[in-house]
Formats: sequence, structure tokens, C-alpha cells
Amino acid sequence: MRIPRFTSILSAGVIGAFFFASAALAQDDPLPSWNDGASKQAIVEFVEAVTTDGGADFVAPADRIATFDNDGTLWVEHPIYTQLAFALDRVKALAPDHPEWKTTQPFKAVLDNDMEALGKIGEKGLVELVMASHAGMSTADFEKIVTDWFKTAKHPRFDRPYTELAYQPMVELLEYLRDNGFMTYIVSGGGVEFMRPMTLEVYGIPAQQVIGSSIKTKYEEVNGTPVLMREAEIDFIDDKAGKPVGINKFIGKRPIAAFGNSAGDRQMLEWTGAGGGARLMMLVFHDDADREYAYGPANGLPDTHFGAFPQDLMDEAKDKGWRVISMKDDWNRIFADR
Amino acid sequence: MRIPRFTSILSAGVIGAFFFASAALAQDDPLPSWNDGASKQAIVEFVEAVTTDGGADFVAPADRIATFDNDGTLWVEHPIYTQLAFALDRVKALAPDHPEWKTTQPFKAVLDNDMEALGKIGEKGLVELVMASHAGMSTADFEKIVTDWFKTAKHPRFDRPYTELAYQPMVELLEYLRDNGFMTYIVSGGGVEFMRPMTLEVYGIPAQQVIGSSIKTKYEEVNGTPVLMREAEIDFIDDKAGKPVGINKFIGKRPIAAFGNSAGDRQMLEWTGAGGGARLMMLVFHDDADREYAYGPANGLPDTHFGAFPQDLMDEAKDKGWRVISMKDDWNRIFADR
Repeated sequence: MRIPRFTSILSAGVIGAFFFASAALAQDDPLPSWNDGASKQAIVEFVEAVTTDGGADFVAPADRIATFDNDGTLWVEHPIYTQLAFALDRVKALAPDHPEWKTTQPFKAVLDNDMEALGKIGEKGLVELVMASHAGMSTADFEKIVTDWFKTAKHPRFDRPYTELAYQPMVELLEYLRDNGFMTYIVSGGGVEFMRPMTLEVYGIPAQQVIGSSIKTKYEEVNGTPVLMREAEIDFIDDKAGKPVGINKFIGKRPIAAFGNSAGDRQMLEWTGAGGGARLMMLVFHDDADREYAYGPANGLPDTHFGAFPQDLMDEAKDKGWRVISMKDDWNRIFADR
Repeated sequence: MRIPRFTSILSAGVIGAFFFASAALAQDDPLPSWNDGASKQAIVEFVEAVTTDGGADFVAPADRIATFDNDGTLWVEHPIYTQLAFALDRVKALAPDHPEWKTTQPFKAVLDNDMEALGKIGEKGLVELVMASHAGMSTADFEKIVTDWFKTAKHPRFDRPYTELAYQPMVELLEYLRDNGFMTYIVSGGGVEFMRPMTLEVYGIPAQQVIGSSIKTKYEEVNGTPVLMREAEIDFIDDKAGKPVGINKFIGKRPIAAFGNSAGDRQMLEWTGAGGGARLMMLVFHDDADREYAYGPANGLPDTHFGAFPQDLMDEAKDKGWRVISMKDDWNRIFADR
């Protein structure tokens, strides 16, 4: 009896310790929605390198700036950009005051739900839609319109509010970086005042760390009260070569880490990578039609109007050591549970 | 003997306690360069009101935004703006490459040290000087030029580097606010890339919390390396009605406290004051010719080209409960000791 009893006690202890260790590991893993693999490893190694005091790649907390594209990097951008869905809803809501829209493009296409015609409106038509839906009110009124829309609008495929369609692995990454002394910024081609009402709740990113495209605002007094009126004029396009410009304008420091998913993020990653010391540049690749969407045209996936990832971006990533995140292989879940 | 001894012990104790309390008070005073008076009291009462958890005026730390003008509010702006002194020095340094400047205004006035002609160059001439001295190089090169200039340039009257001419009472105020959970921002008509190289060292304010006027930058690759080139085109003028516009653009939140010293700060204080809850708006009034400068034209002081405080601003301050800081009466010292 003695040996078996000893063995069983030992076994129980070993098994207990094993379970305890597993539980502790699972609890301590800051990136539980990431599968083990090269992407997750690259993130953890980078963070350890820049936060190890006395290490060769140590970066002072004040310079730990990480920038994130939004559409397609932090949340869903298909079948159309969330902000475009908002603009279409706004045009429909405002249509009763604009009878001429019934016969004028691009508004007619919106009111007729004519997706084929909408696909052809081009940049000029898109700007017209944005101005008609985003300008002509105060910043406070626009914030309320956006906030109200987020409360009711739902994604057509996932049937959930857009604010629930942040990628859970990226939310974990944002938190992991902040827990390690990083400041996390959004640097998006989307409208800054469309994003700010939701970024704190969805990503933990406060308004002052959201950089985006903007229209001009004008300071006015209305009945003795100062307001900022949103004007139908482009102020800044925070996309492509505009991203490093926006980063310099708003932050005044070069990021040490940058995350994107499309050709619009190329220059942000180039600018980030051109700094000295340890750097982390990553691109989310949408290769998961089952759980989300699959689009390229890189690697032979279908081309798209929204967030295209061209082959030459894939080639540049390979050439420059930017890491490509496979949604299908690197993420064990896409969204937080309901 | 007994009673006297007891008395003397008691006295020693009381006196000791008194000195101890005084020392503690002096040590605990976060604003030692401020004289006791209405200005200091208003600051302390405001900070206590917005930081008292459960109080009627409590403000969550995320919304404790305080904005500060720079020239004349945080540091000296006479006899001319520091950035103009920099521009004049740059024009002189670049003159050998521009022989035509010897006969062309506004450059001729600079090279001849003709202050009377300089006073007449107007806004167009000023923009020409700024573009000639601030554009045509990369952001990295400009940062180095500015940093080097600050190392050697000295103020003509005080014979000290400009970076030593921050107002010590305002530096204490910045620290006091930050110690109470505020984010402190500079919102200046001055050039953002002229200020950022010195704001952390001088004011404890990092680059991303500096808002200012800017010229456009353009992303380019030079010999395979990405650079941001500074172009001779105005991007944004962060002055007067531009200040609330800049605050909304960069911060996306309304400040609860704002500090200025001239007509250029009027709209920033109006915008701040128009929000709900406890607010603190203050204007520095330069009424101390002995220790610094005295200029208005408010209250009959001499008018000026640099940071004028007009009478109607003084009237608006009185009307709206903005507090006017008398440099002469409220500050027991102006600059930190050498």
C-alpha cells in the first residue's frame, strides 16, 4: 500500500500543480484570443524588448506611441465602411427636406437602394454624400446624431450594433500595449468626429488620441452661445501619405508600432519603420470568409472597394519585415461574445 | 519652579508646533510664487471643487482639460515674440544664399536691423519672413535648427536663454493642475513645431499636448528614406476663433480651465466658459514694467504689437467673471532663479 499511496499522492500533487499552472498561464495571457504563432510571438517579443529597462531596445514610456488604423484593422469594414452606412441612413432620414434628391445622383442611388449605381458615384459623389450628411450642424449636434445612430444601427450580416464588431484580439492588443506604458492612437481615414463618440467605450481610446479625416469647423455665436459649426469643406484627409502628416501634426512623435490592413496604411508603416530602434509593423489580412470576410486582391483573394490589400503591399511587407496577421490562423475568435 | 517650568515646556511645545505647522504649510503650498489674494484663492478653490469626489462640481479626471496660451501667458513675449526673434536670426543666417534680400523688403529691414521698417511689414511681410525661415526643410531638420537656436539665443533685456523665461508662477500652476489629475495643453498662435522642442523641458508638457499654428508638410521619399518636408503654405492659424477650432480638432473635449493674456485668447475663454459646471478662466495682465513689461492698452497701459490686451477684453472679463492676474500684485517672483 505504501508505494501506491505515495504515488497517488504524488500524482495528485503533480496533476494539481499542472492544472494550477495552466490556469495561471491562461489567466496571465494578455492575448487569449491570439493563437500561439509567429504573430503573437512577434508582439510579445517586441513589447518585452522595448520595456526591459537597461535592454538594448528599451524605449522610455513617453515615446511608446502605437498607432492603429480603424476600419478593417480594429473593426469590420465590410460590406461597406460603417461611416458610409451612417451617411446612407442620414441621407434617407433627411430626404423629406430634399425632394430634389429623388432625381439627383448620388442621392437617388441611396434612396433607391441602388447598390450598382452607388458603386459608380466615385470620390466626388462620396464627398457630396458626406457633406450632405455630416455638415451644416454644430459639433455638439453632430455628436448627438452619431451617438444616437450607434445605439440603434446594426450590421446587416452579424445583426449586432457596430460598436460590438471590434476585433477582440485587437482590443486585447490595445490593452496589452497600454498595460505596458504605451499610448494607443487611432490614425484613420474615417471622420474624427464620427469615431470619437465611441472610441473610449469600444477601444479604451480617449477623444484626444483619435486622429482622422475632418471637415472645417467655424466658431460662431448663436443667441449669445458659442458653437462650432461644421462646414461643407474638407479640412484634412488622414489617409495614405496623409497618415504620417497627421501623426506628425497631432502627436509630434514618430510611433514605434503601427497597425493597419490596407494600402491606406502603407505610408504610416513606412514612416514608423524608418525610425531607429525596435519597431513593430503589422497588417491584418482578411482571409476568413467564414467568420468575417475574405478580400485582397493580394494572394488571389477577391478585390474590394473597401480596404483593399494589394499584392504590392504584401510584397512590401515581406521586403520590409512587416508582419501579416492572418485572421483565419492567428485569431481564435473574431468578436467578443454577445 | 513648577509652574514656570510647565509653562516653558508648554510654550516650547506650542512654539515648536507652530513652526512645524508653518514649515509644513510652506512646503505644502503648491503655488509658492503666488501671493495670497483673489487669484490664488480662485485657483485653489476651483481645483478643490472639481477634484472633490461626490462634490457638486466634481469632474472626472478624463475631462480635466486645461488649456494655456504660450506667448505672454507662459513666457515672455516682449520686446518681440520669441519665434519672431528666431525668424530674424534665421533670415540673417540664410542671407548669404539670398543676395536679393539686401534690397527686398521685408528682408532688407531684418538685415539692416531697421526696427521702424520692420514694424510696418504687416501680416504679408511677416508670413514671408516665416516661410523663408521655417519652410523648405524636413521636420527633423527644422527640429534640430530650433533646438540649436534655443541653446544659444538669449533675451536682449534679461540676458538669459528664452527657455529660462517661463513665468515661474505659471509653471507651478501647470504642475499643481497635473498633480490634481489635469491634462495641461498649450494652445498657442505660435508655430507648433517651434514650441514642441522645448515644451517638455520648460513646462512639463509633451509634444502631443501642444497645439499651435502650422504650415503644411508633405510626405516624400528621399534616397529611399521617408521624410516630411515643410512647405511654404499655411495649414492652420491657431489664434482667436481658431483656438476653439484647434481645441476641438486636437482634443475633442471642451476645457474646464483656460488661461491667456491677449485678444487672441478671447474665444478660447468664451468657449471654455460656455460649458457646464465649474470653470476657471484667467488672463495674465502685464502691469509690471520693473520686473517684466507693462502693456495694455487696457487700463491705460501702453498699446503694443505683441500680445495686446484691449479694454474691451478687460470689460468682457469683468462681465463674464474671468479673473485677471496682476503680474505686479499676484506674483512674488516672475522667473525661476538662475
